[in-house]
Amino acid sequence: MAILERCDTGAIARLTLNIPERLNCLSDEMLAALQSELDTIASEVSIRVVILSGAGKAFCAGHDLKQMTAGRQSEDGGKAYFADLFARCTKLMLTIQSIPQPVIAEVHGIATAAGCQLVATCDMAVAAENTKFGVNGINIGLFCSTPMVALTRNIPRKKAFEMLTTGRFASAQEAEAMGLINRAVPHDQLADETEALASKVAEKLGSVVKIGKEAFYAQATMTTSDAYDYAGDVMVQNMLFKDTEEGIAAFLDKRSPKWSQ
Amino acid sequence: MAILERCDTGAIARLTLNIPERLNCLSDEMLAALQSELDTIASEVSIRVVILSGAGKAFCAGHDLKQMTAGRQSEDGGKAYFADLFARCTKLMLTIQSIPQPVIAEVHGIATAAGCQLVATCDMAVAAENTKFGVNGINIGLFCSTPMVALTRNIPRKKAFEMLTTGRFASAQEAEAMGLINRAVPHDQLADETEALASKVAEKLGSVVKIGKEAFYAQATMTTSDAYDYAGDVMVQNMLFKDTEEGIAAFLDKRSPKWSQ
Amino acid sequence: MAILERCDTGAIARLTLNIPERLNCLSDEMLAALQSELDTIASEVSIRVVILSGAGKAFCAGHDLKQMTAGRQSEDGGKAYFADLFARCTKLMLTIQSIPQPVIAEVHGIATAAGCQLVATCDMAVAAENTKFGVNGINIGLFCSTPMVALTRNIPRKKAFEMLTTGRFASAQEAEAMGLINRAVPHDQLADETEALASKVAEKLGSVVKIGKEAFYAQATMTTSDAYDYAGDVMVQNMLFKDTEEGIAAFLDKRSPKWSQ
Repeated sequence: MAILERCDTGAIARLTLNIPERLNCLSDEMLAALQSELDTIASEVSIRVVILSGAGKAFCAGHDLKQMTAGRQSEDGGKAYFADLFARCTKLMLTIQSIPQPVIAEVHGIATAAGCQLVATCDMAVAAENTKFGVNGINIGLFCSTPMVALTRNIPRKKAFEMLTTGRFASAQEAEAMGLINRAVPHDQLADETEALASKVAEKLGSVVKIGKEAFYAQATMTTSDAYDYAGDVMVQNMLFKDTEEGIAAFLDKRSPKWSQ
Repeated sequence: MAILERCDTGAIARLTLNIPERLNCLSDEMLAALQSELDTIASEVSIRVVILSGAGKAFCAGHDLKQMTAGRQSEDGGKAYFADLFARCTKLMLTIQSIPQPVIAEVHGIATAAGCQLVATCDMAVAAENTKFGVNGINIGLFCSTPMVALTRNIPRKKAFEMLTTGRFASAQEAEAMGLINRAVPHDQLADETEALASKVAEKLGSVVKIGKEAFYAQATMTTSDAYDYAGDVMVQNMLFKDTEEGIAAFLDKRSPKWSQ
Repeated sequence: MAILERCDTGAIARLTLNIPERLNCLSDEMLAALQSELDTIASEVSIRVVILSGAGKAFCAGHDLKQMTAGRQSEDGGKAYFADLFARCTKLMLTIQSIPQPVIAEVHGIATAAGCQLVATCDMAVAAENTKFGVNGINIGLFCSTPMVALTRNIPRKKAFEMLTTGRFASAQEAEAMGLINRAVPHDQLADETEALASKVAEKLGSVVKIGKEAFYAQATMTTSDAYDYAGDVMVQNMLFKDTEEGIAAFLDKRSPKWSQ
């Protein structure tokens, strides 16, 4: 079995982290496998949505602490290795947000440290009701600084600060209320719910979801005025798509659109 | 009947979008009427608050797709027209936030696409409990990029992403929990609730609400330190207003202030 | 009795605003006492957490309006005094976020104007269920511009706008839902709850909490990409701490860490 399994159903690619005995930790190999698979998917126009899930009891428990500890053996005490590791991890997180397809985290069991970062980074997330979310590196003396970047762009400041400095776990219900996930559902409905959400996105025009997702993150840190200048350009570009012309025409004619995609 | 009706009650100006048969869409004419009326109100010191509401079954269903489609007839396929249209729409949205008076959206029925953008853009919003909110352009192949600018400055990231890429409608209860509106009330109490909120604002000093509203948006994208430098200057300026001196004196004397405004 | 009392319990310093007859207002003397005490605490490595509470019926009712009014007697009508006052207040707020130790607001009764700003500024906050939160300066003609800076970095835009322009009080339940506080608890459990939260933080490595807190605010206004570059460096630095090496080793060995701190 591969450490990262891919299973396509129509326009939906499901990636399953598959090192259940190590809680699907983001080892060097797992980071490489995810990076490679997402880079591949980025150019597959037939894929419209990605679901990211985990095999076994947990979604993902973060970095591989054994491997990181082994990295200390080098002459610099691991400094270069750690810098490279976090750079690779960051590249992966940025890739999730930069590929054309929306990525949905399907979360169960636990999502901790960089595993919680994965959830925060995905464009959307659905979780089983009994999932626990934590950025609990502080308990072993490693503040979840990089997970914080993703977390604080999703949830209110004080909730994030508490999770980071106390290691407290948030329930799926809390995660939903805070905005960390889109919704919590009973565990036995998790895959159905995620796939229903994925199917809704897959029905849309891929080219339009693509420019929309790109614009979503691009405008987020601009001033309102700059964001409008930019988004206005995107709207004009979008209006000139042939499929958009057809989509609007079909709507006005009260018929289904005949899209090329 | 005008496409935009204005009715003043004391210091409160109520603007009613009035093309109910086309769900109060933001046609070229409606955008122009709103821009003109808000520009006028901006210099009317007797007006302290604006309520924005819609006649008929909906608050506002966004842009006028028929007019936009007609715009495609020009030699450039509509490119210049669309660019101008989104520039005018953006100018209107920025005007809502730049006029001295707070603008309250009174929302019912549906608020979709640029109609949902209007809600997100208004300083405050009250909605009937059965209102549906959507940025559902994706369903016809037009990503709601400009509405996204306003929406993402109001609600958590993942909730916004889902609405934008799936076209899913949010209920008024969800909108309240997410921060898109201030509150949801039964439909038959909507006007009363909005007017009560407007009256509370209208009781305050107009000059102070004016500098406060300006500062609210100006400081939003600054660093905390820059925002404090700026807000500190605003506080000093505010302290030197004669009416503020009287307001504080009256508070300390436990009497009602005698304000000049 | 001092206007600011300090009581240490182990690694927890409790600071109690102690002018109950004036609702613990932030007079010149109180601002100076808080600044001085926090500056002292900043270099006390034995202190890991600070609790900020108020004696008597209220947490804090904001600035000292009598003193501010007296400041008007100078030739410039108070302009220089006000500028200095807000600069000192801002310095205090920035100090709360820049000292190495997390600061927890323990809130009861009322937290208004600069008192509400204190709550918003503290890294975390726990409140009694009957607490009222307000930025109600607008009622006396003084827009809470500086409190707004802290408030708008904690809660959704429209909720903040309403509180600022109407003077409306938010309940503790609302404050929790909006993200202004971490949680509301029955008044008779308030001190226990705050101290339990403080104890959890105090158990962690102080050096790690310190770099984490610094990174928390530093990365908040960066672009995602810049924030990751910065946070990645912090993670590398953190991994090279001897106590972190021991913390991770202990975790892998399933034993308690033997930390130097």
